[in-house]
Amino acid sequence: MEYTARQIADMLNGDLEGDPELKINGFSKIEEGEEGTISFIANPKYSKYIHSTKASAVLVGRDFKAENGINTTLIRVDDAYQAFAKLLTLQNNNKLNTSGISTKATIRENAKVGRDVFIDDYVFIGEHAEIGDNVKIFPHTYIGDNVKIGKDTILHPGIKIYNNCRIGENCLFHAGVVIGSDGFGFAPQTNSNYQKIPQIGNVIVEDNVEIGSNTCIDRATLGSTVIHKGVKLDNLIQIAHNCEIGENTVIAAQVGISGSTKIGKNCMIGGQAGFVGHLKIADNVKVAAQSGITSSIKKPGQVIQGAPAFDFGKYQKSYVLFRKLPDLYDKINELEKELKELKQTNKND
Amino acid sequence: MEYTARQIADMLNGDLEGDPELKINGFSKIEEGEEGTISFIANPKYSKYIHSTKASAVLVGRDFKAENGINTTLIRVDDAYQAFAKLLTLQNNNKLNTSGISTKATIRENAKVGRDVFIDDYVFIGEHAEIGDNVKIFPHTYIGDNVKIGKDTILHPGIKIYNNCRIGENCLFHAGVVIGSDGFGFAPQTNSNYQKIPQIGNVIVEDNVEIGSNTCIDRATLGSTVIHKGVKLDNLIQIAHNCEIGENTVIAAQVGISGSTKIGKNCMIGGQAGFVGHLKIADNVKVAAQSGITSSIKKPGQVIQGAPAFDFGKYQKSYVLFRKLPDLYDKINELEKELKELKQTNKND
Amino acid sequence: MEYTARQIADMLNGDLEGDPELKINGFSKIEEGEEGTISFIANPKYSKYIHSTKASAVLVGRDFKAENGINTTLIRVDDAYQAFAKLLTLQNNNKLNTSGISTKATIRENAKVGRDVFIDDYVFIGEHAEIGDNVKIFPHTYIGDNVKIGKDTILHPGIKIYNNCRIGENCLFHAGVVIGSDGFGFAPQTNSNYQKIPQIGNVIVEDNVEIGSNTCIDRATLGSTVIHKGVKLDNLIQIAHNCEIGENTVIAAQVGISGSTKIGKNCMIGGQAGFVGHLKIADNVKVAAQSGITSSIKKPGQVIQGAPAFDFGKYQKSYVLFRKLPDLYDKINELEKELKELKQTNKND
Repeated sequence: MEYTARQIADMLNGDLEGDPELKINGFSKIEEGEEGTISFIANPKYSKYIHSTKASAVLVGRDFKAENGINTTLIRVDDAYQAFAKLLTLQNNNKLNTSGISTKATIRENAKVGRDVFIDDYVFIGEHAEIGDNVKIFPHTYIGDNVKIGKDTILHPGIKIYNNCRIGENCLFHAGVVIGSDGFGFAPQTNSNYQKIPQIGNVIVEDNVEIGSNTCIDRATLGSTVIHKGVKLDNLIQIAHNCEIGENTVIAAQVGISGSTKIGKNCMIGGQAGFVGHLKIADNVKVAAQSGITSSIKKPGQVIQGAPAFDFGKYQKSYVLFRKLPDLYDKINELEKELKELKQTNKND
Repeated sequence: MEYTARQIADMLNGDLEGDPELKINGFSKIEEGEEGTISFIANPKYSKYIHSTKASAVLVGRDFKAENGINTTLIRVDDAYQAFAKLLTLQNNNKLNTSGISTKATIRENAKVGRDVFIDDYVFIGEHAEIGDNVKIFPHTYIGDNVKIGKDTILHPGIKIYNNCRIGENCLFHAGVVIGSDGFGFAPQTNSNYQKIPQIGNVIVEDNVEIGSNTCIDRATLGSTVIHKGVKLDNLIQIAHNCEIGENTVIAAQVGISGSTKIGKNCMIGGQAGFVGHLKIADNVKVAAQSGITSSIKKPGQVIQGAPAFDFGKYQKSYVLFRKLPDLYDKINELEKELKELKQTNKND
Repeated sequence: MEYTARQIADMLNGDLEGDPELKINGFSKIEEGEEGTISFIANPKYSKYIHSTKASAVLVGRDFKAENGINTTLIRVDDAYQAFAKLLTLQNNNKLNTSGISTKATIRENAKVGRDVFIDDYVFIGEHAEIGDNVKIFPHTYIGDNVKIGKDTILHPGIKIYNNCRIGENCLFHAGVVIGSDGFGFAPQTNSNYQKIPQIGNVIVEDNVEIGSNTCIDRATLGSTVIHKGVKLDNLIQIAHNCEIGENTVIAAQVGISGSTKIGKNCMIGGQAGFVGHLKIADNVKVAAQSGITSSIKKPGQVIQGAPAFDFGKYQKSYVLFRKLPDLYDKINELEKELKELKQTNKND
């Protein structure tokens, strides 16, 4: 990007104090400001940096006051953080504002490709796949046969989407994501071998879903593994066959969810938590990081911790006493000793 | 697929009740049945759906009875679930029944490729690699120099197999699997730097092994990391250098196994469990999810839980009391108080 | 490789006892020795194998003594293990001693590529990227726009490095590593949707860093996620946006580090440990596997365990008593009973 301070102030309905012709071509944190960049101050804790920052312009609140003279150009706005985020989004969108289909990509003849798509080198798109308008697909990404990708979705490099899966609109998947690999299902045989249970369902990812790097979502045995709209998945997550993740649920990195577990809407799942299979988790549930969830949760909004997980507050209390166990142990032994002495005294009386 | 109900009944040695010419071109769950699909009822719990299902045909047991009239076509078989699985397998095999070598793949001159292989676009096969008959390799998969792949093995997209590794027959690897990356070995130096210990061994994967998406198996320092025949590995598992996984052992997602640990045959390892290095785990051992195994297990068939892990039943008992720690704490304080009072009383006597 | 025993002895300043013309073309463990290979004995526990090994030559210490006659050729050196490692490194470097740029790679016109690089098929190098001298890049690796890769760095197959990231000299990244995917940041909206917070920072990886397969490092929101020089990361690790990992810190597989956490120098983090965000961990700290770190650690060199983690020794003591909780419970009940009896006795007196 390259804008003048005047252009930025106008975009943000801000008031400019300083050089309107100042050229801005990047962003910085206030404490690491560099020439030519714009920064922001939203938290008063950072106000002091207004004097030392090397950022050429700074977004501040309408009522921002600095004690001494300021060398940097100020742009006063209603909410400095939101204004800054707006600029970032604009810049981000510009960066991705590219289209065209590489001659070094494979698109099978009977695949359908929408308008204004970007398909880069070494992308593979299988038979009967349908790619919506304005979709962007980065190098080394694989789209299997019969896959549908909704409009405005962005697929970063090296993603693998198996046959028959469906991806919604306006999704963002990061590098190395795997969608639709086989669920982990085996029937034990009498000779202690296992026979594979074929996994012929698919994965459905609805609109506005973001999925982090190297996260894996397995296809259903039959039917669909479903990621509902607005879900946000971090990196390296495992979602097994036939799971369902409710609208706007947010799941942190390295969580594992076993087969057929259904998670409600608006849940927040901490990193490295694990769920056994066939559970049903209510809406708005919060799960502490590293918890192990072994039974269904019926109460919406419950907050749980532990392995197996139970009420968060109770876990905290138990854990405080876990740390004190050596003291408790000493106390019990002391009580035992005193009791013995007392009995002895009584006997001697 | 497209079969008539008659053809399916014949394939499964079933008895047909209904329209023999009915066309079946897909599968469904009984409660989500769609026209043109076949479903099954194995569990009596689902018998009620026989009246409402939209599936055109349903596999049921020989002795299945429905209370009222049924609109759907029935096929009676000895075991409805197994019959259904047989159909799924058939369908699955048909789907993968493809061969041919893409001109957009790289096969180094002195690599050997068997008969009836399928090698898709952007596959890379290194020098002196040997690909067995009927192997299928999907886009973006990398086979290093001197790698051997046994017949009938399927490699999904984006798999990376480093130099010198050996893969058995009839294996199935999912997207993003990494086989043969360097083990994690460093010798501390006096200046608190580390010197890399070269990892020049390989990985041997025997026959009938399935490996889930983005799972990593490191090459041995010397010799081989070995995955024995029939092992099933889920997604995102880490197996470090010089490990050995015994025949028909099943390992759930996100398990981590540190260097040189040997796991026995027919073990079952729950998700997110972790093993420290240099352990020896007996056959038929079961490990609960999220357990941390810090010492060898000599007794075959033991079931363990916890971090560090110990006997499963004992862990459960301890955990029940962990949850009750606040009550126990109160009781101890109460005892202490009572004892004090008692001593006081005695003194006063 | 193929060397004579004489050549090897000369390279290692060793004394040869046996056939100087013996041809050596591989390596083996002493207990699994094969003809034509060289092995070593550093640990006296393995000395007994000197008689049974089939290795053609064995590196031993200057003062090594075998009781009976030995058939194999010996090379006596100051430190048998270090000498063996030196040979392995030599062999490893030879294997990678290749260069050239594939015509089946994409290098955007205004990218800069150094001397003696190796760039294999299906590699993608974006605009304005800079690839240092002697860098080796294996198939299916993606280098985004403006990325800089320092000299002598090796990138294994299928690595994805997003725009604007910087990688130091002499680094080694394994297959499937993702560098620079978006940090996981969302601002909750009033309608329980989330708005994405753009992530426009980058990742800086300094010199001599090794990163294991399928590990993910997210780009900073603003500024940089930084991996300092000499850091060693194992497989399947998650490092979130704005983290900083100090010099020579070693992190085992499947660890997860949440946003903005800073880890000190020379730390050792056990496998599957997890850190919440915004922590500061002192230098030389050791974290036990599977621990959950929920608060900053100020004391350098502390050793911690548990979830939440606290002092390692104290955790061990508490855990011993956790295992004994059923006994403790019985004892408390027994005390309660005895106390009641005693009170009864007193009353009756």
